[in-house]
Amino acid sequence: MVNKPSQEPFIYEQVASELADLIRIGTFRAGERIPSVRQLSRQRKISVTTVLQAYMLLENQGIIESRPQSGYYVRSKPPHMLPEPEMSAPQQDPTLVSVRELVMMVLKDSTNPNLIQLGAAIPNTELVVPVKLNHIMAQLSRQVENRYYMYDIPPGNEALRIQIAQRAVGIGCNITHGDVVTTSGCLEAFTLSLRAVCSPGDTVAIESPMYFGVLQVIESLNLRALEIPTHPRDGISLSALRFALEHNSIQACLVLSNFNNPLGSCIPDENKQQLVELLARYEIPLIEGDVCGELFFSGVRPSVCKAYDRKGLVLLCSSFSKDLVPGYRVGWVVPGRFKATVEWLKYTTNVATATLPQVAIAKFLESGGYDHHLRSIRRLYAGFVSQLSQAVMRYFPQGTRVTRPNGGIVLWVQMPDYVDSLKLYKQALFDGITLAPGYMFSATEQYRNFLRLNAAWWSYETDRAMRRLGELVAEQERSVK
Amino acid sequence: MVNKPSQEPFIYEQVASELADLIRIGTFRAGERIPSVRQLSRQRKISVTTVLQAYMLLENQGIIESRPQSGYYVRSKPPHMLPEPEMSAPQQDPTLVSVRELVMMVLKDSTNPNLIQLGAAIPNTELVVPVKLNHIMAQLSRQVENRYYMYDIPPGNEALRIQIAQRAVGIGCNITHGDVVTTSGCLEAFTLSLRAVCSPGDTVAIESPMYFGVLQVIESLNLRALEIPTHPRDGISLSALRFALEHNSIQACLVLSNFNNPLGSCIPDENKQQLVELLARYEIPLIEGDVCGELFFSGVRPSVCKAYDRKGLVLLCSSFSKDLVPGYRVGWVVPGRFKATVEWLKYTTNVATATLPQVAIAKFLESGGYDHHLRSIRRLYAGFVSQLSQAVMRYFPQGTRVTRPNGGIVLWVQMPDYVDSLKLYKQALFDGITLAPGYMFSATEQYRNFLRLNAAWWSYETDRAMRRLGELVAEQERSVK
Repeated sequence: MVNKPSQEPFIYEQVASELADLIRIGTFRAGERIPSVRQLSRQRKISVTTVLQAYMLLENQGIIESRPQSGYYVRSKPPHMLPEPEMSAPQQDPTLVSVRELVMMVLKDSTNPNLIQLGAAIPNTELVVPVKLNHIMAQLSRQVENRYYMYDIPPGNEALRIQIAQRAVGIGCNITHGDVVTTSGCLEAFTLSLRAVCSPGDTVAIESPMYFGVLQVIESLNLRALEIPTHPRDGISLSALRFALEHNSIQACLVLSNFNNPLGSCIPDENKQQLVELLARYEIPLIEGDVCGELFFSGVRPSVCKAYDRKGLVLLCSSFSKDLVPGYRVGWVVPGRFKATVEWLKYTTNVATATLPQVAIAKFLESGGYDHHLRSIRRLYAGFVSQLSQAVMRYFPQGTRVTRPNGGIVLWVQMPDYVDSLKLYKQALFDGITLAPGYMFSATEQYRNFLRLNAAWWSYETDRAMRRLGELVAEQERSVK
Repeated sequence: MVNKPSQEPFIYEQVASELADLIRIGTFRAGERIPSVRQLSRQRKISVTTVLQAYMLLENQGIIESRPQSGYYVRSKPPHMLPEPEMSAPQQDPTLVSVRELVMMVLKDSTNPNLIQLGAAIPNTELVVPVKLNHIMAQLSRQVENRYYMYDIPPGNEALRIQIAQRAVGIGCNITHGDVVTTSGCLEAFTLSLRAVCSPGDTVAIESPMYFGVLQVIESLNLRALEIPTHPRDGISLSALRFALEHNSIQACLVLSNFNNPLGSCIPDENKQQLVELLARYEIPLIEGDVCGELFFSGVRPSVCKAYDRKGLVLLCSSFSKDLVPGYRVGWVVPGRFKATVEWLKYTTNVATATLPQVAIAKFLESGGYDHHLRSIRRLYAGFVSQLSQAVMRYFPQGTRVTRPNGGIVLWVQMPDYVDSLKLYKQALFDGITLAPGYMFSATEQYRNFLRLNAAWWSYETDRAMRRLGELVAEQERSVK
């Protein structure tokens, strides 16, 4: 299955998509049998393998199920759904972040092939890296082209910046490639942005819970984090932020606007506009992360705060790490009025981002395969997230809550109060499972009974791992009773 | 000539090397004619082209010269040499650095193919990138290997760290690959090291003049630079540093130990030991840059300060940017007792360095071609530096001084007092020439009549550019008289 989703002509995906449509409009209803593999193969004049692939995809997405000796059936809707976690209520004082060792441990877990990967939010590089991208990289490497060996001095590779600007314009940003600075991934974009707009000791208002990488950057720059209550579907609470702005000295705000990590929240576009306007009244820069913006499961691509930026105060940060390939380390920032500073800081950080990976991604985007690729991984991840969510429901005890993200690759799970996620993390490691305990997502230890699960590597093994996690949680329950 | 130096079997280089030996030991003496191309071709049973290549190489290195209609002759030693610059005498107070815009301008010049490149110290990527490295990269890209797409979480790629550690052991460092952290180039290694050992407001003792990249990093981190007098051959003055340590609060020291940029100085190995011991008495970390250590022109590979480190206080920083390929952005740091902090800072900076470039370089080193490659580029650069030095002598006015580096790719030129290097930079740009004015190499404007020249791109065009620079300098002389 390696790299399948990007191979032309994706017939199995077309077939799966058409069947999914037929199921959605009711041609096949819950519990009904769909055509057998052989039937469909004859009828559509496609190979049995292709049909099987299509059916596996639909199965992964939780749309159909196979019944031994009988065939494939439209799945019933899950009988009930777990409630979502509530709006977060973090402490109201700025605090220094410190969960450094735990973060480095969980990160190193991610390179251990013997562990079931429910921890670091690493995309499924076995399934989603397009073969075409590899071909382009190989082709570029064979060419003896001096500029591929040279430093791509900030603002970075021009061809790539053009592609990035074109896509940004497509979601409402009024920018050109001259506004883009390429970086080595999105975390570097965050680091450069925070360094450009803050000085040591400054306070950054952030969503809570927050992706631990951002918290670590904040700690490393000697900044303070002010955690703002955040809704699991709509993201940062504007009223809470307004209150914070009135009562605190805040120098920057950072949000993961679309499919937040770990919440999966997506700030509604009208709230995005209000957020930008609110901060603009205080002349406070907004650093916006959008790495999962393309990974929506339904509807249209959500917009970005940057689209409502009239004062050049929004620094839009993103990368190709979640939807293309993390190991190339290619990201970008559109830093608005802070561009000169960001460019200079990029130079002082590491002169430039590696040239060949930038050129390869630019050429992949130019070739037009990116949107097709995105359609295919959106479906894949939608299925995986749904499967993982159902596994939480199946195996975790009563009182568990779980997010219902409409994009991205992670779930945020609120377990009963008695559960200590750090203890769970350590116990799970013994059983060959890694996860991200709630402690990592706040500076204030308030998410001790939460955990983040990465859905991108869903497989039958993951299901077993989830059952085991459920057992471990139950053991904690018994030990407190 | 693209990529020639690394193509097997390098016969022309062997031939050139043997001839150079014969000339050195006096078999052919200054002014004598060497065998004609045809003669040598018959005699050695090699092609005329190969002999021509060998002779061109020797000519580039300034060892022989061609006389029209007559043949090739051993060059006479230059009748005289320009004096070297004197020991620097920078201001004795810590100062904040600020030459940001100038640096960004000179850097951007380096991407302009219409300029003669005497500015940024960019290696000759047209000549020195080995074809074999390209082949390895192409091969890796064709493989569908999941780990090449993944994050190579700090400390970074293991195979590469093993190669780096093996070479470090070879120059006296008692380390293993567990002591190495890979980075995106040497400047990132410096940034991480300075962040690991200093806090904003701290003072760093540095050689003077100093590579502008380091000065920019110091400025960007809100540190102060204390410039220590530095000898153009022996590097940092130990007595001046001792005095500074006794009279200032210094939190770190940073030196470019081998073939310093811009001076070309190389701290003698016994001084390296004294430097390490001196700083260890004060428990002050030493950040050591060694990017040009492999680019020595004669004798043996100089050692590093790290080899004398008994307390884990030396952070050895280097990269493959000067001797292999800058655009891959692969460097490293051996951070001693600061390793955990450096690893964590590396994560917060950009998660990891791009994976494929690390793997490709590791495989190139494993394949054993690196030393052969280094021998060839050392000869090339020795010749280029010598040619450029002679051009300074030919075209620059009386009173000019120039360094005599025994390695690296740059020359540091002290022009008569009346010359303003910034004015020269601006005038030269009009004539399609870029250079690095002295202002960039200090926080205190004291090198206004100095300039750094990059020798790596020597060609006949460079010679013309040098003549033009000489004229521009002479014009400045006339305008002050």
